[in-house]
Amino acid sequence: MSPASDIAHDCALRSRIEALNTDYAHCIDDDRLEDWPGFFTADGCYRVITRENHDLGLPISLIYCAGKGMLNDRISAMRTANVFEPHTYCHVVGAASVLASTGAEHRVRANFTVTRTMSDGAMSVFACGKYLDRVVDDAGRLILAERVVVLDSRRIDTLLVIPL
Amino acid sequence: MSPASDIAHDCALRSRIEALNTDYAHCIDDDRLEDWPGFFTADGCYRVITRENHDLGLPISLIYCAGKGMLNDRISAMRTANVFEPHTYCHVVGAASVLASTGAEHRVRANFTVTRTMSDGAMSVFACGKYLDRVVDDAGRLILAERVVVLDSRRIDTLLVIPL
Amino acid sequence: MSPASDIAHDCALRSRIEALNTDYAHCIDDDRLEDWPGFFTADGCYRVITRENHDLGLPISLIYCAGKGMLNDRISAMRTANVFEPHTYCHVVGAASVLASTGAEHRVRANFTVTRTMSDGAMSVFACGKYLDRVVDDAGRLILAERVVVLDSRRIDTLLVIPL
Repeated sequence: MSPASDIAHDCALRSRIEALNTDYAHCIDDDRLEDWPGFFTADGCYRVITRENHDLGLPISLIYCAGKGMLNDRISAMRTANVFEPHTYCHVVGAASVLASTGAEHRVRANFTVTRTMSDGAMSVFACGKYLDRVVDDAGRLILAERVVVLDSRRIDTLLVIPL
Repeated sequence: MSPASDIAHDCALRSRIEALNTDYAHCIDDDRLEDWPGFFTADGCYRVITRENHDLGLPISLIYCAGKGMLNDRISAMRTANVFEPHTYCHVVGAASVLASTGAEHRVRANFTVTRTMSDGAMSVFACGKYLDRVVDDAGRLILAERVVVLDSRRIDTLLVIPL
Repeated sequence: MSPASDIAHDCALRSRIEALNTDYAHCIDDDRLEDWPGFFTADGCYRVITRENHDLGLPISLIYCAGKGMLNDRISAMRTANVFEPHTYCHVVGAASVLASTGAEHRVRANFTVTRTMSDGAMSVFACGKYLDRVVDDAGRLILAERVVVLDSRRIDTLLVIPL
């Protein structure tokens, strides 16, 4: 490809990845959580891990779901079994950086912050960190083969029930 | 259109909408508020509403301006009549999601956070939520036929004088 | 150029600038600070200034580095001489607005927030404001001839050791 078409290709890929990240965030923030597993492949993996453990190569995750069954179970449990104070998230996701790309898969990183609002109106920065993703094309739509949510803080609120 | 040109079209539209959102945010954050009504159509509508009221379908807005006259009046009042402690906003607006598009109008959603800094230097997350917009093309420039600012928190600071 | 190619050109330029801003943020947030001077030209200028001083046209900067030597020295000092409590940053940078463009140089503005996490896990909004940049093309890669970091708050934490 020529440099100009390289640039156009890179811009389009970043734009599509950011559309994925935006749709993912809006899905959660609008409480359409039953749609959340749909952002993953059938055997897609979702993990939440602290930066400390991630940097040390420790595998211990705060949340670990492998495959759509576990992702769906997580939402079902939240809707039926978990008792918690109502609250909402507002994700702001930074622009995506494509770390590596094969034809079939893109390794991507993006920063995020989540502002949480409790039912009494109290707001706080609940979480921040980065998404480390493996993104694949599924019949023209980008979805996640893996999302690792790396949290900057190791002081995790016990109220980690809605996905990040 | 071919899929490739579809993708290019979608990316260009999102990019132009994000440019609108960015210019809008910078206009407010730089205190160029007299330019703020220029982001709306002549009969453009601007509302600020809590998520609680929005989800219940209640029409009660915290702020409601219909048409450029009301938008201009709001800024005039702020400049001349309102007495308040000086403060600045720093908007960070997430990427835009195009919910629906006709040739003439795009329905768009984007998340935002506003960090407020008081004159003594104190910073806080002042507001977060989403913009629900109707965006139209005005001779090659995208502007707002409607912006509904949905705030996650119902605990609204009395100091809501600068537009969000 | 035709309007359509104008739009494509503008979108590609914004996308490339945002890629620069994203890579810059990730470099710092991932503690790859030795790579940070590489985002600047050989005589690139980096300044951190409060909004108050910037708006008054006062030249007093909190940090001032002119040229890669000073940028490298800053990181060396931080790694070897400075004693401070470990902490990390999470940048979220808003979309870029191109204020002016010649063939050779682009004047750009973007908003940012930095959430700081201390080693005990405490998170806070550490800084917010805007980047005012002069961006140039260096053999196909965009880099900074100048970055002025304008901080909204004049209440600066003494712990300003990692670059913003």
